[in-house]
Amino acid sequence: MTQSSISIIVKGERKEVAADQTGVQLFADDKDIIAVDLNGQPRDLYTPLHEGDKVEPITLESDQGLAIMRHSATHVMAQAVQEIRPDAKLGIGPVIKDGFYYDFDVDKPFTPDDLKQIEQRMKRIIKSSQSFRRRVVTEEEARKEEADQPYKLELIGAKEAEINSEEATEVATGGELTMYDNLDREGNTVWKDLCRGPHLPNTRYIRSFKLMRTAAAYWRGDEKNPMLQRIYGTAWANKDDMKAYTARLEEAARRDHRKLGAEMDLFSFPDEIGPGLPVFHPKGAAIINAMEDYSRQMHRRNGYSFVQTPHITKGHLYEISGHLQWYKDGMYPPMHLDEEKDANGKVTRQGFDYYLKPMNCPMHNLIFKSRQRSYKELPLRLFEFGTVYRYEKSGEVHGLTRVRGLTQDDSHIYCTRDQMKGELTNLLQFVLKVLKDFGLNDFYLELSTKDPNKFVGSDEVWEEATNTLAEVAKDSGLELVDDPEGAAFYGPKISVQARDAIGRTWQVSTIQLDFNLPERFQLEYIAADGSRQRPVMIHRALFGSIERFFAILLEHYAGAFPAWLAPVQVQAVPVADEFAPHLEHLLDQLRDDMVRCEIDRSDDRFGKKIRNAAKSKAPFILIAGEEDVSKNAVSFRFRDGSQLNGVPVEQARAWINEAIKVRAQINSADDFRANTSCSQD
Amino acid sequence: MTQSSISIIVKGERKEVAADQTGVQLFADDKDIIAVDLNGQPRDLYTPLHEGDKVEPITLESDQGLAIMRHSATHVMAQAVQEIRPDAKLGIGPVIKDGFYYDFDVDKPFTPDDLKQIEQRMKRIIKSSQSFRRRVVTEEEARKEEADQPYKLELIGAKEAEINSEEATEVATGGELTMYDNLDREGNTVWKDLCRGPHLPNTRYIRSFKLMRTAAAYWRGDEKNPMLQRIYGTAWANKDDMKAYTARLEEAARRDHRKLGAEMDLFSFPDEIGPGLPVFHPKGAAIINAMEDYSRQMHRRNGYSFVQTPHITKGHLYEISGHLQWYKDGMYPPMHLDEEKDANGKVTRQGFDYYLKPMNCPMHNLIFKSRQRSYKELPLRLFEFGTVYRYEKSGEVHGLTRVRGLTQDDSHIYCTRDQMKGELTNLLQFVLKVLKDFGLNDFYLELSTKDPNKFVGSDEVWEEATNTLAEVAKDSGLELVDDPEGAAFYGPKISVQARDAIGRTWQVSTIQLDFNLPERFQLEYIAADGSRQRPVMIHRALFGSIERFFAILLEHYAGAFPAWLAPVQVQAVPVADEFAPHLEHLLDQLRDDMVRCEIDRSDDRFGKKIRNAAKSKAPFILIAGEEDVSKNAVSFRFRDGSQLNGVPVEQARAWINEAIKVRAQINSADDFRANTSCSQD
Repeated sequence: MTQSSISIIVKGERKEVAADQTGVQLFADDKDIIAVDLNGQPRDLYTPLHEGDKVEPITLESDQGLAIMRHSATHVMAQAVQEIRPDAKLGIGPVIKDGFYYDFDVDKPFTPDDLKQIEQRMKRIIKSSQSFRRRVVTEEEARKEEADQPYKLELIGAKEAEINSEEATEVATGGELTMYDNLDREGNTVWKDLCRGPHLPNTRYIRSFKLMRTAAAYWRGDEKNPMLQRIYGTAWANKDDMKAYTARLEEAARRDHRKLGAEMDLFSFPDEIGPGLPVFHPKGAAIINAMEDYSRQMHRRNGYSFVQTPHITKGHLYEISGHLQWYKDGMYPPMHLDEEKDANGKVTRQGFDYYLKPMNCPMHNLIFKSRQRSYKELPLRLFEFGTVYRYEKSGEVHGLTRVRGLTQDDSHIYCTRDQMKGELTNLLQFVLKVLKDFGLNDFYLELSTKDPNKFVGSDEVWEEATNTLAEVAKDSGLELVDDPEGAAFYGPKISVQARDAIGRTWQVSTIQLDFNLPERFQLEYIAADGSRQRPVMIHRALFGSIERFFAILLEHYAGAFPAWLAPVQVQAVPVADEFAPHLEHLLDQLRDDMVRCEIDRSDDRFGKKIRNAAKSKAPFILIAGEEDVSKNAVSFRFRDGSQLNGVPVEQARAWINEAIKVRAQINSADDFRANTSCSQD
Repeated sequence: MTQSSISIIVKGERKEVAADQTGVQLFADDKDIIAVDLNGQPRDLYTPLHEGDKVEPITLESDQGLAIMRHSATHVMAQAVQEIRPDAKLGIGPVIKDGFYYDFDVDKPFTPDDLKQIEQRMKRIIKSSQSFRRRVVTEEEARKEEADQPYKLELIGAKEAEINSEEATEVATGGELTMYDNLDREGNTVWKDLCRGPHLPNTRYIRSFKLMRTAAAYWRGDEKNPMLQRIYGTAWANKDDMKAYTARLEEAARRDHRKLGAEMDLFSFPDEIGPGLPVFHPKGAAIINAMEDYSRQMHRRNGYSFVQTPHITKGHLYEISGHLQWYKDGMYPPMHLDEEKDANGKVTRQGFDYYLKPMNCPMHNLIFKSRQRSYKELPLRLFEFGTVYRYEKSGEVHGLTRVRGLTQDDSHIYCTRDQMKGELTNLLQFVLKVLKDFGLNDFYLELSTKDPNKFVGSDEVWEEATNTLAEVAKDSGLELVDDPEGAAFYGPKISVQARDAIGRTWQVSTIQLDFNLPERFQLEYIAADGSRQRPVMIHRALFGSIERFFAILLEHYAGAFPAWLAPVQVQAVPVADEFAPHLEHLLDQLRDDMVRCEIDRSDDRFGKKIRNAAKSKAPFILIAGEEDVSKNAVSFRFRDGSQLNGVPVEQARAWINEAIKVRAQINSADDFRANTSCSQD
């Protein structure tokens, strides 16, 4: 080892290299390597190396590589915007899932034409192969260089604790400030930005990108700050990935629950009522009812005690629970009542504020507290379909996935510490069983653990609870993702993340321990030894909210629900009017079985009726023509167009009931055979 | 016929009597006759008679007689109060169901001791046999005589339209003012009161009376007026009737749903939440769930389409419906939101008021209107368990029968005029069927018809609708009571009045036509001829509200519910701990059948456990001792103490399920035999 060489570890192997070597030389033979992982941190490819460094390549296709490329793409976008609108002030430009954005302070919002122009300019910049160059600066230098960029100046001056994860893209936490210069082929700086990095070696690695849409956004997410204009973009390692992504977006748009909801006449958001407040039409409510009926049954079978609580309460309850201190922004404003009088008309109190409930837990705690509890009653599992109201900002309200009125399938479980593990184990099994019955099969778990700066309760209880959750998660055999310091202040949490039919992940169920409310409500039970003990409290929503879970299912199935959930289960189509009574007779029997049936008695021709029936996405289309009637039979048509002809009506009735009962997904005659005794007859 | 005789009709028969004869002489031989019905009007017994008068006796025991006696009793009470508190000012003193009250303006409320003293004084007055004497006065004379009675003066000056039915007790409508003097045996006036009459001949006819309680009441029911102190009393024709009445009150108190609700741990009204806002505990919610499950099933089987709507809305909706004009006092105050913003953050409107919904109809109308409707879709029956909030005055809030948050089993039916009769007929049958399934069997109907001064829509439509309702009511074969001019301004109504186990009447279901909302919401359907037509709208609540119906059932059954409604259906009591597993095994099977079971595993002795089981009012108490276990059997104990021993567990399970399924009331072994296949085995 000479002075001009250093010993480093590359891809796990020790290597002697020249002291001035960087990733550029180390990985020169692989043009897909665009950065290095240096001692566990992503860094620019040309970062100087030192004795003992551990170096791993980062390829463009990797998650880290894509993030770096997208981050460079957002710089290119900002450069293009400033070339076109020189007075545009820069906000922040972080990477997000599948893409990136940058916020700009501009005189007027960007138009679709602007976006095209910016895209063109970006292509030119990318082609010109500008390289990204990192430069450490002092705070003073940074202020000088960004003198005409007020938002950057604010970030430079901000305390570390005030910087959120997206803003941290701009200003590295840990004190060091860096600028990234874009150099042209001659080495001249043509653009620069305050940035933490790392970046691509040069712009040509941005192989496929697209600008997607614009939106308004407050600086630092605060309504009191100026409104900036945000441009969203996406970028991929190659054109095929871009194509696949675009296809996924189209598929998602095709499944958009708002679109399907309108097409299938499931729900609406009438202007007269207000944003985020859904109204469920008969077909939508039929699905909700099927979901709730099933959930009720499962909760009854699994030892839950149903309760029922009002939607409003005096503010006092949320003073006890603390919600009025830490959740007030999420609540609707109060209804102020001037006074309360007793039965004798005496004013007993002036000035009450009533609130819509944003959460059910405080009311369930009152039920727990309504009389003395013995350890023999534990675990006590209180359950309610509790509709809560949360004042989401109108910009954040979105279809049924982000609403202002939502019904939680909400349970609060009170148990002893000894019971905690058994309860959590059963709970996770129960949750997964129910989700699977709804046709979701691909899960992973996320474990949110203590933020050491923000928690109530003792370290010991947190540790025990967190370990228990981790064990339970491990025992489930599911992938477990850590969410360190992600817990709410009142306790650790497991959340179930479900992947849908097109691979998107949705957080559904949450299992949340709470060390705060039992204290605030002074909850107690009498233990076997006669002492008073504080119960462990578990919050648990399985669907999350019914509205959101409904939307997830609607998108997951693209409206073609399994037989038990379908809003119309049987759509009958007589070949001619004269055969309608034959079908009506069967439908009456099916209705007695509680099957949701419709018959098309419109003046449309048969072909049109069949097309309409297909559009309704009913799992069973029943057709009757002359031959069917003569044989006291019906013909089935399934979603994929396959048929089953001349089925005797008694069997048709029995098999339809079977398919519904086993909660089968019936898209074809084969599905039908596989899920009923049809094949045996 | 001489000048000194007149010809009158007494008890339907023509009679010649001396011109100076009155009821006193006519009915001198019957001391129970205390007044006369003179040409259809109740009058004092000594009222002068004229040629051609029709005279009927009024006996003390008759409804009219009791009312007159109670009215005289309230005078005696007022006299007693003024003797004790000479500065007491008099409000009004009308007769109510089973009794009377008088309102007094006094310095301080009456105490229970005051009531005793007043009762004593009343007894003395009654014994002194004061007679009531009517005297017609001019308004000027009345003002002079009542100069120190400000409330009476106000009534004397009031216009006839301002006088309500209770106030009319004091000032006869029709212009004539009368005073009633109380004369002692010497004929001296010892007390007097402005009063319409009639009255008893003298105070001794008040044979049995009692003062019941006091309450505060605003003068003329208006919060802005002074608060008066009301004393309630009751009076009867004899001591036996008084005893029976007191027994009825005691029985009602024993059944008071508020008392039973606490004893049976069914619900509570936590102070933290606010008055009129019930919280249902597990056992209460179990009953509510059983009620709702059954209702859901019945509505599904009867062609209802379920919908679901939010609990809050922008005020705009209630401007359209008109509720903010004519129902605002019954609504909670608004939640004011400063502004609404669109997805781009632009303020789209300043200042929204959101309201809790007091009624579901406007939201159902939005669903009807959400797309074009064809006559082929009618009748469209939208159904929802809709929780509404109404700001009842706190003095009027009462247990579950008058709450501020209530869940209506609410349906709005849209049909053509041709369909109206068929729909109303089916509706009434449906309503009665459901009420009977809940164990109510004694009904009458009330038909509320047009107030000619207050109605919307054409006379023709009102007539058709009223006739239809009357026909439907008649066809039902039930007693029909007219409520002339009792309809709301928007349409005629039938209400179902149910008598409970102790003979009390409750208004339950209402069927209400509405000619107003279809206009205000511009509801339309496309008729067969392609024209746009306005549908007929029917509001219908069957339970009324679930909370109130729950209270009615709780009182009707005195907590001993039929098997299908009982919160705990099976209460298991092992003779000793070692026999508990045997019972647990059966309970697990019953729980699989969705039967609500509990087992007593406390440390209490067997006898105590049996007593506690009886208190729980469970229809099936299952006992297991050594012999039961050895024979794989259980013993039943029923509410009346009867037993059925050594029943094989498989049969016990089957029979319990049978009894629940047929919704039987099981109070005894005989009931059990009569309602299950038990007797056949």
